[in-house]
Amino acid sequence: MTTARIQEFLATRRPPSPCLVVDLDVVRENYCAFRKALPDSRIFYAVKANPAPEILRLLASLGSCFDTASVPEIEMALAAGATPDGISFGNTIKKERDIARAYRLGIRLFAVDCVEEVEKIARSAPGSRVFCRVLTSGEGAEWPLSRKFGCTPEMAVDVLARAARLGLDAYGVSFHVGSQMVDTGAWDDALADARTVFDRLGEKGITLRMVNLGGGFPTRYLKDVPSAETYGRAIFDALRDHFGNRIPETIIEPGRGMVGNAGVIKSEVVLVSKKSDDDEVRWVYLDIGKFGGLAETMDEAIRYRIVTPRDGDITEPCVLAGPTCDSADVLYEKAPYPLPVSLTIGDEVLIEGTGAYTTTYSSVAFNGFEPLRSYVI
Amino acid sequence: MTTARIQEFLATRRPPSPCLVVDLDVVRENYCAFRKALPDSRIFYAVKANPAPEILRLLASLGSCFDTASVPEIEMALAAGATPDGISFGNTIKKERDIARAYRLGIRLFAVDCVEEVEKIARSAPGSRVFCRVLTSGEGAEWPLSRKFGCTPEMAVDVLARAARLGLDAYGVSFHVGSQMVDTGAWDDALADARTVFDRLGEKGITLRMVNLGGGFPTRYLKDVPSAETYGRAIFDALRDHFGNRIPETIIEPGRGMVGNAGVIKSEVVLVSKKSDDDEVRWVYLDIGKFGGLAETMDEAIRYRIVTPRDGDITEPCVLAGPTCDSADVLYEKAPYPLPVSLTIGDEVLIEGTGAYTTTYSSVAFNGFEPLRSYVI
Repeated sequence: MTTARIQEFLATRRPPSPCLVVDLDVVRENYCAFRKALPDSRIFYAVKANPAPEILRLLASLGSCFDTASVPEIEMALAAGATPDGISFGNTIKKERDIARAYRLGIRLFAVDCVEEVEKIARSAPGSRVFCRVLTSGEGAEWPLSRKFGCTPEMAVDVLARAARLGLDAYGVSFHVGSQMVDTGAWDDALADARTVFDRLGEKGITLRMVNLGGGFPTRYLKDVPSAETYGRAIFDALRDHFGNRIPETIIEPGRGMVGNAGVIKSEVVLVSKKSDDDEVRWVYLDIGKFGGLAETMDEAIRYRIVTPRDGDITEPCVLAGPTCDSADVLYEKAPYPLPVSLTIGDEVLIEGTGAYTTTYSSVAFNGFEPLRSYVI
Repeated sequence: MTTARIQEFLATRRPPSPCLVVDLDVVRENYCAFRKALPDSRIFYAVKANPAPEILRLLASLGSCFDTASVPEIEMALAAGATPDGISFGNTIKKERDIARAYRLGIRLFAVDCVEEVEKIARSAPGSRVFCRVLTSGEGAEWPLSRKFGCTPEMAVDVLARAARLGLDAYGVSFHVGSQMVDTGAWDDALADARTVFDRLGEKGITLRMVNLGGGFPTRYLKDVPSAETYGRAIFDALRDHFGNRIPETIIEPGRGMVGNAGVIKSEVVLVSKKSDDDEVRWVYLDIGKFGGLAETMDEAIRYRIVTPRDGDITEPCVLAGPTCDSADVLYEKAPYPLPVSLTIGDEVLIEGTGAYTTTYSSVAFNGFEPLRSYVI
């Protein structure tokens, strides 16, 4: 998964460690695969996954739309060449003054999941389109979504009815099956719920037109994942099952699926040690950890593929940790990571599939370490 | 715990939300309390807790030494007026080139916990003092330390003997009882281990002179904690128990205990909602969360005291969450937080005891949100 271009960049430029290198060719391939897999869906790239200007510019030039979480993300998308009608303010938690700022920037598409948010939008972004996020179970996702976003389908009916009464355009529903979702059937239940909301609002004379299928498309870490094509087929089948021949407009919001496999982090082994003479596992300390960009190892949720210069040698289970003085800065301990016994201080390792949710999670300067550097090639 | 000076600053300056305000008078009081409680110990402030230049300058002017985790932290301490002999490179995980840089900056005191690190220091910081970190149980700490740092006392003997053989000054041992340690007896077991290491090395003709008692001194969040004076007495008693009238030099490394209660975060309620009509808990979303500075709510470890303008009203259990589109950005859910039922969108809340481990944990720009702003007054 480390492309030839990334390999060449690392070999010739020798950037200081740690750093992330993103290959735009892979982003382009991913975009095209989504477009092909779901030709009738509009693609809103989830900017939060990786807001590097080069990535945003490429995607804007390919015709992508953008799902944003804040006003700065809206501004980044605009700066990259997106037009306001291709940007969604997809965060359900917004300060009213940020809604007003977004509206002044031309944004007319907002996510909501409660009446209170609808009221803010009606006041500060009058007439805009809103879609209501519906809770899903998140089962089968490797980075589960909990109940933080969304409301029950029953409540979504009230929320969208209120939006319509307040002069907003009750546009549709959204859901998110959970990030890194590997069960292609996950969209089926959510679409059944979406159909229910469509029907209930139809009875009130309100015609929804859009289903936002969210993100969740996985990237390959250690295990193979289904292709965009496989997802596309499953989603299309589920749409037809639930909406028959009145399939609504659809939106997808890939983030991880768009850039995850496009990036590789180069890191250095800082220390290899044992805690006592009879310890069974070795401790391997890298120059990047949970606070330097690998936040998604929290609870050992995401298990990255690590390539070392000693691959092929006998391996041994290792606890993998970051370089800070924080005891929570341990990457894999409950399930130790098999690494070559010959791995040694100073070795360079590649952490693959790290194009998404790394640079921006990185802390400002925890322990004095600078944020993760990034090169987009 | 929000001091009159902080209240006045917030009232007159009205800084944008979210932000941290740190009162230097409290830092000064804390420093003096440590000095009084442990008059024979040298105080090494743990820079990582809060490296704001104003804090470092104040502490340098008061005569504090500094415990640093990286070369940038060393540079910050020097810039604040510290002298190299008052700085310890206390991270046990160091790149060899960083050891060399520290050595060139005049640093001669290094932490180690394995032979491999000793070898690096012998090569790149010849003749320096080293102390070996010993594992402790961490029981009773609210932010436990795991096994990431330190080795067994038996191994510490080998590590320090090796240091002496390689021409380093085998100076002493260190331990860390765990951050936010509320059990004053915790230092006792660790000092018993330290004494063992002293004795075993004495038998080899190597005389250790220093015990680094680490940090762990708690700050007050929701519950009262013992005073510095109480800790000082417990530690002095334990030192006398284990070392008799040959008490070694001692070092303490307060971080949280020095600045935790000096800071208050001002935050704004962005949204209050329910997920369904029959939900028992309300969701309260703030404009700061796990990725904006409140990382220590991870696993709900640290429970901050939150002051609202509606305190005194009837309370209701609430799930408290941050403003990002990340489902992991939830502060308190397993143990919901009681907040006034009248709390409403736009209310300003104060999160107290947030002077330590907030600004630097903050992400660079997750979801486009800027890092936590800080005002030191």
